[in-house]
Amino acid sequence: MPPTRAPIRCLRELSKLHNLPRRRPYSTPPPSPSPPTSPFAPRHLLSIADLTPAELTTLILNAYTHKQTLKSGLRLHHSLSTSLSGKTVAMTFNKRSTRTRVSTEGAVASLGGHPMFLGKEDIQLGVNESLYDTSVVISSMVSAWFARVGPHSDVAEIAKNSSVPVINALSDDFHPLQTIADFLTIHEVFHADRMREGAQNKGLGLEGLKIAWVGDANNVLYDLAIASLKLGVHISIATPKTHSIPPPMLSLIRSSTTTTPTPGTITTTNIPSEAVHNADILVTDTWVSMGQEHEKAARLAAFQGFQITKELAEKGGAKEGWRFMHCLPRKKEEVSDEVFYDQGRSLVWREAENRLWAALAVLEGFVVNRGKIEGSGRG
Amino acid sequence: MPPTRAPIRCLRELSKLHNLPRRRPYSTPPPSPSPPTSPFAPRHLLSIADLTPAELTTLILNAYTHKQTLKSGLRLHHSLSTSLSGKTVAMTFNKRSTRTRVSTEGAVASLGGHPMFLGKEDIQLGVNESLYDTSVVISSMVSAWFARVGPHSDVAEIAKNSSVPVINALSDDFHPLQTIADFLTIHEVFHADRMREGAQNKGLGLEGLKIAWVGDANNVLYDLAIASLKLGVHISIATPKTHSIPPPMLSLIRSSTTTTPTPGTITTTNIPSEAVHNADILVTDTWVSMGQEHEKAARLAAFQGFQITKELAEKGGAKEGWRFMHCLPRKKEEVSDEVFYDQGRSLVWREAENRLWAALAVLEGFVVNRGKIEGSGRG
Amino acid sequence: MPPTRAPIRCLRELSKLHNLPRRRPYSTPPPSPSPPTSPFAPRHLLSIADLTPAELTTLILNAYTHKQTLKSGLRLHHSLSTSLSGKTVAMTFNKRSTRTRVSTEGAVASLGGHPMFLGKEDIQLGVNESLYDTSVVISSMVSAWFARVGPHSDVAEIAKNSSVPVINALSDDFHPLQTIADFLTIHEVFHADRMREGAQNKGLGLEGLKIAWVGDANNVLYDLAIASLKLGVHISIATPKTHSIPPPMLSLIRSSTTTTPTPGTITTTNIPSEAVHNADILVTDTWVSMGQEHEKAARLAAFQGFQITKELAEKGGAKEGWRFMHCLPRKKEEVSDEVFYDQGRSLVWREAENRLWAALAVLEGFVVNRGKIEGSGRG
Repeated sequence: MPPTRAPIRCLRELSKLHNLPRRRPYSTPPPSPSPPTSPFAPRHLLSIADLTPAELTTLILNAYTHKQTLKSGLRLHHSLSTSLSGKTVAMTFNKRSTRTRVSTEGAVASLGGHPMFLGKEDIQLGVNESLYDTSVVISSMVSAWFARVGPHSDVAEIAKNSSVPVINALSDDFHPLQTIADFLTIHEVFHADRMREGAQNKGLGLEGLKIAWVGDANNVLYDLAIASLKLGVHISIATPKTHSIPPPMLSLIRSSTTTTPTPGTITTTNIPSEAVHNADILVTDTWVSMGQEHEKAARLAAFQGFQITKELAEKGGAKEGWRFMHCLPRKKEEVSDEVFYDQGRSLVWREAENRLWAALAVLEGFVVNRGKIEGSGRG
Repeated sequence: MPPTRAPIRCLRELSKLHNLPRRRPYSTPPPSPSPPTSPFAPRHLLSIADLTPAELTTLILNAYTHKQTLKSGLRLHHSLSTSLSGKTVAMTFNKRSTRTRVSTEGAVASLGGHPMFLGKEDIQLGVNESLYDTSVVISSMVSAWFARVGPHSDVAEIAKNSSVPVINALSDDFHPLQTIADFLTIHEVFHADRMREGAQNKGLGLEGLKIAWVGDANNVLYDLAIASLKLGVHISIATPKTHSIPPPMLSLIRSSTTTTPTPGTITTTNIPSEAVHNADILVTDTWVSMGQEHEKAARLAAFQGFQITKELAEKGGAKEGWRFMHCLPRKKEEVSDEVFYDQGRSLVWREAENRLWAALAVLEGFVVNRGKIEGSGRG
Repeated sequence: MPPTRAPIRCLRELSKLHNLPRRRPYSTPPPSPSPPTSPFAPRHLLSIADLTPAELTTLILNAYTHKQTLKSGLRLHHSLSTSLSGKTVAMTFNKRSTRTRVSTEGAVASLGGHPMFLGKEDIQLGVNESLYDTSVVISSMVSAWFARVGPHSDVAEIAKNSSVPVINALSDDFHPLQTIADFLTIHEVFHADRMREGAQNKGLGLEGLKIAWVGDANNVLYDLAIASLKLGVHISIATPKTHSIPPPMLSLIRSSTTTTPTPGTITTTNIPSEAVHNADILVTDTWVSMGQEHEKAARLAAFQGFQITKELAEKGGAKEGWRFMHCLPRKKEEVSDEVFYDQGRSLVWREAENRLWAALAVLEGFVVNRGKIEGSGRG
């Protein structure tokens, strides 16, 4: 049976979350920019919330399979490696983003397509014409569209009006490509162990694993949390009181597990050592994202005591073999050199490389197979 | 019989038009930058004036055929879809230009080629070395060159010294790719009707159609007017007195019909309602182009009363089924939302998408087939 | 027998040369960024010093062969023209560089690969994260990396940590791609003559030729000098006293000929007419490179009398048929129009085009054939 579309309810809730005021040169909305409702409407990936647990699992396993194939010197199946031949994939990036750009361009190229990068020097969405006009026009000339935006409502609006699949390549609220790469990494590192411990080899077999997020509440965290719950993984989140998850976002994360038989749990705290207790994986991200430089001093003060160190892991009682993850780029304040460059614990290089394989699986699922997320020829 | 080259006389007249003074770091021209005169010299597309009526018709029909093929899920003939494999097409853009860039990159990719975009951050023609030097060097390493320039003399100079075909991707005076897309759009929308009315199915069968241009006198208009006359289409142009077509350009447009059996006519006025009388298509463009922002207030004042609205069309007596066209990006002042978003009348989205198919046909004719514009395998 | 790796001693000396202080946001070096020492470590091209004379000769002859093939309308062997299909080659450029960019992108495309250009707007190496982190991450997602940097230590550091071949696309100290293009040009122009004069057709047969460099001591000169000595070509260098070759660099150049049976000689002077005596080729480059604009007046004064002119060549007694070379872009002060545009003497256009063929041969040798530089199927 083909996978069903992600519940529209999620998307509606998402968009409710994001009707923040922002500068728009076009105050009146265009008349009847009707959303695609025909059976031919493309399927988009704006957040992990758009995926069923089975679909998320399939994307991760497909990414794993393709990585194995190409890293072992074999080639992708010819029908896949030429699936985007002669086709152009737009990449509109409102901010610089090295990993996202390199992984996405590379994935498009590996399927034979032409990635067309449009940075802020090339296009300013919503400035010279309405975002609606741009969405209709660009999507009419390309086969897919990766959008790296500011407000999540921007990528939602692009998707609403695009005639081709839109992939969120990072918005202020979600970062699905990072999450797929993260769970591919976790699958690679923990799966074999879990099997030895007698886990059922259904799905990823990660049920019961515990992730500790210590740091800021941000886009990377939100999709990571949604995916954790969907995959039966527990996530414990420590943020400063002043930087905790906004209640509507927390409720959205919690509501995303309706189709998971045994969802993971989410707990929040303001005490880092509490969060890391019994954790398998410690994760963090920068405390000062692009655009937040003006509040850097205040942020550094707020996050005092949140640096991930061996001492923190020991004090809090993380599992002995705990691993470290970070989506990069990394600043020194959020994690010690000792942890970050620990070749045994730190998964950061693998995690970064896995962005490529995540993008490849997403292109296969959403563009080549038009939103039907199915296993990619494993025996 | 192979089509003959566009009359050189046109190009000479064009260049006479454009010997405007401009900042040049190299005051002395390089000695003997001899123009290509050998039989191997490439053929360029700098303006619709470079095309015979038959060639223009063929380009439009080829664009139509390829669009039909690809939109119906078929593939281009393998010899065409791989015709630029391993080849690089330079795209030097001195100004941002979304539609031109996306359509051109997409067209190059659809023929298997690599579009190499060089924006103003990447290359500044005529700044670090003479335009002659740059033209010789870049053209020696690529298979074709799309140039989006300021003064038309720049693209003319590039073409004079280039060893590969140069396509004008927008200059201050001409915009041939837009015009081909426009007439592809008109062909799609009006051809069937015209056939029913008993027109001869020779060429596009658009003879006698009337276009009304209401707005500024600019590059988009000039090539549109030249194409109209060549195709037997009448064009009526309303501009403010202060912004009318310069006399030498008007005379160039009029002189471009020498090889057309029954050319269209061109009329000019300063009264919008006069221009739209009996028109099949109302067309406009922005009143404030890039680089004109400093004169915005003066321009908005000068164009008072030139907004295209349903009222204007009714008052002037446009044909009942009149359509609207605009090359985008659109500002609100030049056309009402009611007209612009009218799904029945407005052809703007189709027109934008057709930029892709126009670029594809031009690449086929000027690069793949080296300037020999022939029908692309219609039965 | 496969060619052996370039003597590591050279690279160590190079890196000793370049431990200049520079701004680095990361004062502590990362723990154990161990250099690749496994047999699977990629081979890089950072300077002509990395090549044996036989390898340098092979790269030049391969470039010549591929140029002949493609210019005569034939295609590269299918296994070569698709060797980078589906693969991405990163191009990080910290400064604008038209010829390097166009030639490198074109070469990657001609092998079926996707060149991913990352300019200073896209990535700032060493700014948002350590250069070590970026090197590991980017190299994990691409198949090769062209880096155009400032300090040579940057490209050396990238190479040390990259898991894929790194090609120096121009550093403050070396420019190997330019040198290969230069000797391809010299081979094309002088080889036939030399054969007539009874030279042995082993290698390039350029032994005994004399190059005169008149101008600044810079990156282009250093690799040109190293290649000259390796190929048995004499090089005589005239710079102002205030702008002569730093002694450690001069000693490095001299030490690079240990494996050449009959190396060329290098002589230095401050008198242009002395350098050009008996020279076959006069070469220069700009006196004011990018980033030196603030010292332009002082530089122009220091280089008074260094312009290459017919008078200088006659006064100094260059060979009657002397030729002129320049890597471009050219400013008027360093060479007269009369010489620069002399279609008989000036090789500058051929030299620029040959950048494309040099990049192609380097990709073949370092990426496709993983550092094993072998002849490319000449009979």
